[in-house]
Amino acid sequence: MIGIFDSGVGGMTVARAIEKNLPGRRLVYFGDLARTPYGSKSARTIRKYALENSEFLLQKGAEIIVIACNSAASVASGMLRDKLPVPVFEVVTPAVRQVVSMGSRGRIGIIGTRATIKSQIYEDKIKKLRPDFQVFGQPCPLLVPLVEEGWLNKRETKMIIRRYLHSLKLKNIDTLVLGCTHYPLLKKLIQSRIGRQIRVIDSSRAIAAELAVFLQKHPNLVKILSSAGENEYYVSDVTEAAQATAERIFGRRINLQLRQGKDNA
Amino acid sequence: MIGIFDSGVGGMTVARAIEKNLPGRRLVYFGDLARTPYGSKSARTIRKYALENSEFLLQKGAEIIVIACNSAASVASGMLRDKLPVPVFEVVTPAVRQVVSMGSRGRIGIIGTRATIKSQIYEDKIKKLRPDFQVFGQPCPLLVPLVEEGWLNKRETKMIIRRYLHSLKLKNIDTLVLGCTHYPLLKKLIQSRIGRQIRVIDSSRAIAAELAVFLQKHPNLVKILSSAGENEYYVSDVTEAAQATAERIFGRRINLQLRQGKDNA
Repeated sequence: MIGIFDSGVGGMTVARAIEKNLPGRRLVYFGDLARTPYGSKSARTIRKYALENSEFLLQKGAEIIVIACNSAASVASGMLRDKLPVPVFEVVTPAVRQVVSMGSRGRIGIIGTRATIKSQIYEDKIKKLRPDFQVFGQPCPLLVPLVEEGWLNKRETKMIIRRYLHSLKLKNIDTLVLGCTHYPLLKKLIQSRIGRQIRVIDSSRAIAAELAVFLQKHPNLVKILSSAGENEYYVSDVTEAAQATAERIFGRRINLQLRQGKDNA
Repeated sequence: MIGIFDSGVGGMTVARAIEKNLPGRRLVYFGDLARTPYGSKSARTIRKYALENSEFLLQKGAEIIVIACNSAASVASGMLRDKLPVPVFEVVTPAVRQVVSMGSRGRIGIIGTRATIKSQIYEDKIKKLRPDFQVFGQPCPLLVPLVEEGWLNKRETKMIIRRYLHSLKLKNIDTLVLGCTHYPLLKKLIQSRIGRQIRVIDSSRAIAAELAVFLQKHPNLVKILSSAGENEYYVSDVTEAAQATAERIFGRRINLQLRQGKDNA
């Protein structure tokens, strides 16, 4: 079983991409809605939550952990690799590989939450592979609440995106990484604002593609099921807005199960 | 000692108002930044958090508890009154008393988070006193993130406020209650958008005034200190944005102390 966690429902863009790429594997998802969002919290707090979420997924039978939250990937992936007995994947590295593997003039923009941008994880990972690249980070903290409200095509959302992307436009970037799993829902607006000629990389799709390759090489690591079965979607809180966002992402009804636990017992 | 809790730093508008009205009393504040915001979470989760926060304040010596968060007041104040050994105040009731005590034609608008508006607490409490009044609730979920970002005077903030207030304007209200402790920071924008002739009630000031009257009648309930001493401000997470908002509210440097505990240990 592939275990995936996120601070809320944004990581379902990752779950959906994995589901499409790996139809024979079962998924168990956990969204920490009782403590969402992570992106404006401290690294210390995010690390604690990431460990608790992973332990829950292991209990549920996860044979592999996917950190589907850029904020958690940015500050907690090393710690999880040290502590967990299973392979740990995260959304940042595959996006970085895409950045450097495709033709780029080396002017890269990254948008994400405060926690992700402050961690400079994209910059560090890109520069390790391509020290000649220039990387420009821009925190966009209001985009997560706008997506969660379903304001995907409102004038205010467009204006806020324009404001956030303004400085990146001036930097003359050629590649823009959507460094937050909520942002694929705004991809069209972002693409049209930054310009058609800019390559926009979706970290959700990048991780799904990389996981498919990895599981082809290591076919026994995760049990292959004869029938796809029901994937399981757990959350630490249930709200109507979350339910609506989940269904917007999957395009079908999703049964969000409340995790009984210390955070919301 | 007066114990005050909120989901984050918004409740500091309440702490500041109490500090002004009751200069001789010491305060201990707790802001649950590790799990903020509450307003988009379920009643069940908010109740659990409210109880944990109150128990922390009691440990710190609180002789009275003030729920400085409208969302928690809306869904958890009855439960806290049942369970806690000290008097419990909350921000909703004093604002409701102001609504009915001043001349009104009985057309009342309430703005707040989703949790507060969905609970209909303002409507229920106003109608208990004045069944002839009409109450119109409007959730404004994006205003908390906008305040926390410090976007207090941006064009997008003005547009979003206009969008939220539009339906209330059509209802021809004469009174508008700021049913969230973050909103006093946007009071000028809200007042100018809703119209100068509309009475805007700030729930932070209302609770401070009511508490002052109560403590005059019950002078021994909370120890009066000869010197004001240092008030204590605890949070479950420390971030730069929270520090900046705290200082914006108080107009001075505030020492946010990290609470060591199960949520962020």
